[in-house]
Amino acid sequence: MKNLSKILGMTAAAALLAAPAFAQDAIDPPAIEIGFILNTFMFLVTGVLVMWMGAGFSMLEAGLVRSKNVTMQLTKNIALFAIAAIMYYLVGYNLMYPGDAWTVTNIIGSFGTAVLEPVGLAGAEPDLTYASVGSDFFFQLMFTATTASIVSGTLAERIKLWPFLIFTVILTAFIYPLEGSWKWGGGFLDKDWGFLDFAGSTVVHSAGGWAALAGAIVLGPRLGKYKNGQTVPIVGSNLPLAALGTFILWMGWFGFNGGSQLYMNTAGNVADISRIFANTNAAAAGGAMAALILSQLMYKKPDLTMALNGALAGLVSITAEPLMPSLGLATVIGIIGGVIVVFAIPFLDKLKIDDAVGAIPVHLFAGIWGTLAVLLSNPAATFAGQLVPILIVGAFVFGVSLVVWLALKVTMGIRVSEEDEYVGLDIAELGMEAYPEFTNN
Amino acid sequence: MKNLSKILGMTAAAALLAAPAFAQDAIDPPAIEIGFILNTFMFLVTGVLVMWMGAGFSMLEAGLVRSKNVTMQLTKNIALFAIAAIMYYLVGYNLMYPGDAWTVTNIIGSFGTAVLEPVGLAGAEPDLTYASVGSDFFFQLMFTATTASIVSGTLAERIKLWPFLIFTVILTAFIYPLEGSWKWGGGFLDKDWGFLDFAGSTVVHSAGGWAALAGAIVLGPRLGKYKNGQTVPIVGSNLPLAALGTFILWMGWFGFNGGSQLYMNTAGNVADISRIFANTNAAAAGGAMAALILSQLMYKKPDLTMALNGALAGLVSITAEPLMPSLGLATVIGIIGGVIVVFAIPFLDKLKIDDAVGAIPVHLFAGIWGTLAVLLSNPAATFAGQLVPILIVGAFVFGVSLVVWLALKVTMGIRVSEEDEYVGLDIAELGMEAYPEFTNN
Amino acid sequence: MKNLSKILGMTAAAALLAAPAFAQDAIDPPAIEIGFILNTFMFLVTGVLVMWMGAGFSMLEAGLVRSKNVTMQLTKNIALFAIAAIMYYLVGYNLMYPGDAWTVTNIIGSFGTAVLEPVGLAGAEPDLTYASVGSDFFFQLMFTATTASIVSGTLAERIKLWPFLIFTVILTAFIYPLEGSWKWGGGFLDKDWGFLDFAGSTVVHSAGGWAALAGAIVLGPRLGKYKNGQTVPIVGSNLPLAALGTFILWMGWFGFNGGSQLYMNTAGNVADISRIFANTNAAAAGGAMAALILSQLMYKKPDLTMALNGALAGLVSITAEPLMPSLGLATVIGIIGGVIVVFAIPFLDKLKIDDAVGAIPVHLFAGIWGTLAVLLSNPAATFAGQLVPILIVGAFVFGVSLVVWLALKVTMGIRVSEEDEYVGLDIAELGMEAYPEFTNN
Repeated sequence: MKNLSKILGMTAAAALLAAPAFAQDAIDPPAIEIGFILNTFMFLVTGVLVMWMGAGFSMLEAGLVRSKNVTMQLTKNIALFAIAAIMYYLVGYNLMYPGDAWTVTNIIGSFGTAVLEPVGLAGAEPDLTYASVGSDFFFQLMFTATTASIVSGTLAERIKLWPFLIFTVILTAFIYPLEGSWKWGGGFLDKDWGFLDFAGSTVVHSAGGWAALAGAIVLGPRLGKYKNGQTVPIVGSNLPLAALGTFILWMGWFGFNGGSQLYMNTAGNVADISRIFANTNAAAAGGAMAALILSQLMYKKPDLTMALNGALAGLVSITAEPLMPSLGLATVIGIIGGVIVVFAIPFLDKLKIDDAVGAIPVHLFAGIWGTLAVLLSNPAATFAGQLVPILIVGAFVFGVSLVVWLALKVTMGIRVSEEDEYVGLDIAELGMEAYPEFTNN
Repeated sequence: MKNLSKILGMTAAAALLAAPAFAQDAIDPPAIEIGFILNTFMFLVTGVLVMWMGAGFSMLEAGLVRSKNVTMQLTKNIALFAIAAIMYYLVGYNLMYPGDAWTVTNIIGSFGTAVLEPVGLAGAEPDLTYASVGSDFFFQLMFTATTASIVSGTLAERIKLWPFLIFTVILTAFIYPLEGSWKWGGGFLDKDWGFLDFAGSTVVHSAGGWAALAGAIVLGPRLGKYKNGQTVPIVGSNLPLAALGTFILWMGWFGFNGGSQLYMNTAGNVADISRIFANTNAAAAGGAMAALILSQLMYKKPDLTMALNGALAGLVSITAEPLMPSLGLATVIGIIGGVIVVFAIPFLDKLKIDDAVGAIPVHLFAGIWGTLAVLLSNPAATFAGQLVPILIVGAFVFGVSLVVWLALKVTMGIRVSEEDEYVGLDIAELGMEAYPEFTNN
Repeated sequence: MKNLSKILGMTAAAALLAAPAFAQDAIDPPAIEIGFILNTFMFLVTGVLVMWMGAGFSMLEAGLVRSKNVTMQLTKNIALFAIAAIMYYLVGYNLMYPGDAWTVTNIIGSFGTAVLEPVGLAGAEPDLTYASVGSDFFFQLMFTATTASIVSGTLAERIKLWPFLIFTVILTAFIYPLEGSWKWGGGFLDKDWGFLDFAGSTVVHSAGGWAALAGAIVLGPRLGKYKNGQTVPIVGSNLPLAALGTFILWMGWFGFNGGSQLYMNTAGNVADISRIFANTNAAAAGGAMAALILSQLMYKKPDLTMALNGALAGLVSITAEPLMPSLGLATVIGIIGGVIVVFAIPFLDKLKIDDAVGAIPVHLFAGIWGTLAVLLSNPAATFAGQLVPILIVGAFVFGVSLVVWLALKVTMGIRVSEEDEYVGLDIAELGMEAYPEFTNN
């Protein structure tokens, strides 16, 4: 999201203006101040939309797990969202956006809690060429929560609560901010590789997918998922919730991709945000229809959960470059994302990697595809500049996550007992059923 | 929405300025550019709210059908939303807003895919007196999806998936854009009849209602709905979802009506949008309370689904003129909408027209009422100028829809078998239950 | 929300400008007009978020009651939302914001319906230093609905529909607007006590909590809730709905607190709104984690409903002063709110005050805490200036509510029969089940 050349361009231009006029509560604000207001408000509005994606993941996952594990899935989702807020404040924000204060140049950012501007911007002359620190913090924070949400879905129905939350602490405080800094903080992937990832097909989605994959491998599949070489379908308990979650994510993604334009202070910027909204919608539509039609062709039955995951895959696919494609190309990029999901879900099952909600196909596989698809429309992208950072981020996130998951497994254990898994995590771990009056078993 | 006199006024005024100064990334944007930014961002924010209505229809319909048909209803809703995006891009947008490029003057617009502005508005001097093409496309697209959503509710629980989706293709590519162009594209209803329909009581809601009515007639009622001259109530399976859907639609309607002001670049425009928000809320409140109280008086039991449909009818009623009424008149317009629904639902049943969710009373009947109610507050409206376009749009949409439904019926069949309908569409057509662990039958 | 010194400051400054230039549809709007547009649009966007909280309360309450009372809870929520809209228009708005037209100076505002500006601001020269009346009305109205929503949760599962709605009429027309005028209308709590309550920890939340407490005392606990000196847990029927409601409220709270800044026309104001968004999120996160961890420590089981109520308590706690705290202090304020909830819920049960959803701990107790917490960060706050208004508002709202509840009890009765309560309000009072196909009892 941090398009540094644009930031530098703005700063340079601002410098030409010498000291930009500024007065709090000014009745006649200068145009630069209006730009600051517009950029900031844009971040707040789009940040709220990304925040809303937390509800989307919660509903999607609650709908796709069995009713005996729904309370646990909700608990994980509300807790991970809260943890992301706290850890990103304590550590993540400055680690990811160190400005000039790198601890290890372009690799490890700075340590320290996030500090917002003073009330009313009182005191030192503020820089009005970008947006408020508070709005930037708010917006970036919500991306952290998204990354953590991806993991919770894959590992559903068998992981213990507290080890999962400890992993979430490490993910939101260190793993995500570190790899994020390499691109959006202006680190080496941005500077040395010319890596392009507009809103995070790799930085957010494939990263979350890699962390989930490492967890799925260490954790193992759910009981009874693979029997005698066959994959036994485990069906979701509440498909309206899954559909609601998908609509929420679709809605929130306008903020996710649109806000990543970072500026709304010129006609060109707001027109670009418009392109991004339209393209994001087109890719989701393409992904949904591709998966729906393909499931009809392959299995003779249209499959709702495939269509939902297809829409999400379309959204992930367009995230690395939602600005440059035409509406037609955006639709095609989404279609390919939807196709990937339909093939990736059985492929993972063949490897006996059990992903309870299909998060790895959607976020990891479509995330990689989306990052490479930048090459289709952005002449500034190079094949190596896209592929190598995908591999570096993947190796780092997967490797560190694997170590953390293994350490958690060895020390406190990450998986509930067979008995508890059979009974369900809600009764066994929480003593609270999600639907105490409904279930017929 | 396209208030052409206003557009012309703006353009004329802009012409006085000769060449408006414009530079991308300008630090000191001229005021006209700020207006462009404000108009565009307003479209994006309100467009997201209208997009969210897609989730509202999905939840409303999923809550009001029986559990055995819920997965199907969700599948239809996610698919129609995706289809609307694709068809409006391929055909609808230019057919509806041809500018000067009518194929048949003021009757049939132009053909061709939607093309957005170049990235960063690079190249030709852009016109900054309105909003970005991307934001306009995004906003208008969402209205198309709304029209299609109306149809899916009425025909629930017995129509096959693919014929429904084929109808959706035709509706969103041709039927809706064509009749929409006659008013909002500046066609003959706008030019010759002085038809006033601010945000679409007729263009969107009654049009969707006519298409649904044609379908309901061709399709016939659900099995067991009418027995021995009696109407057998078929109750919804999940009323919280229906209430959630109504709240979502209520929320989204602020975008639907508010965004239809089209401009936010002056104090007068933003104050008008404020009036529209307040009036829209007042009409929904009036409709909900009217239906709730009336159901108490008529049936001795307050009826939640009547109150929900009453709120929606209030919203539809105020949609043709949400700006001019006072808060009091807006409340009254909504109240009458709510009353209409309470009487129209049993009236349709008397005709043995089976509308699974009450969409025809809400969107068609209240839509007609709302279009006529423009006469109460807007001195520019004439009785003929409102009534004749209602009839023309109705005849066109109903007639064409009837032909399409009949053609689909003859060729591929539109209704599932009796056996499948009895079992439920989820098992019979999709092989996937919405609540596999809950249902007690 | 009405920071009168700021309003006066603006007005004085505006007066210096003599007659501010203004022309409708001006192509080159003066900066003051841009400020008006930005303030107004900010109110509309944040007002929609607060409106959305109505859905949040509905889902939270529908999820936390037993399935036999869900339709009733939904009916109450949609009706109270509609009633708030109508009564605030008829009476509340001018009673709460009388300007200079107090009936009894600084105690009782003016009577009369709300009147918006003329269409297009035509006619008299408008004051452009604040925001449109329509947007202010829309925003303030939504706070009224929130107050009413708090009451409906506490009294769930045993109160009759119509007496509850009559109380809602009185609450939204008189009780809330009156006490609200004392602070935000510039009445005696604001003028004489220097009371600080930025977005309503007391004006909205503890007020709603007092009204709920009075109702709970008059109404008595649900059948079987307290048996032989023991509290019998009555568990919610649909926890995903409760989690969804919490996410919706969390999202809406950005509008609730952020919009209460009232202005977005300067860099200082928009940066302050950003601080508010970030602090609001931090407090919610702190409250959620505090309650989750505390429930683990105290009961050996992490408790989802505690975590949800903890998040809400965090939000209520930061509402009186979301601007001045640092992110760290905001987190701590939220943590204390979460701790309060975990202890207050069993404490209320010890007193045999039955609160079906925990609204009194969340809104009343955390509301008082939040109002006192202003002292931690705002040097303008005094202990007496916070405590005495808390007590005055409490005594007034509790006392008047008690009288109204008793009057309703004596005249029409407020509680359903034991038989009806046992059967459930949905069947007994409404004849409509929320989940007719699911429940297994």
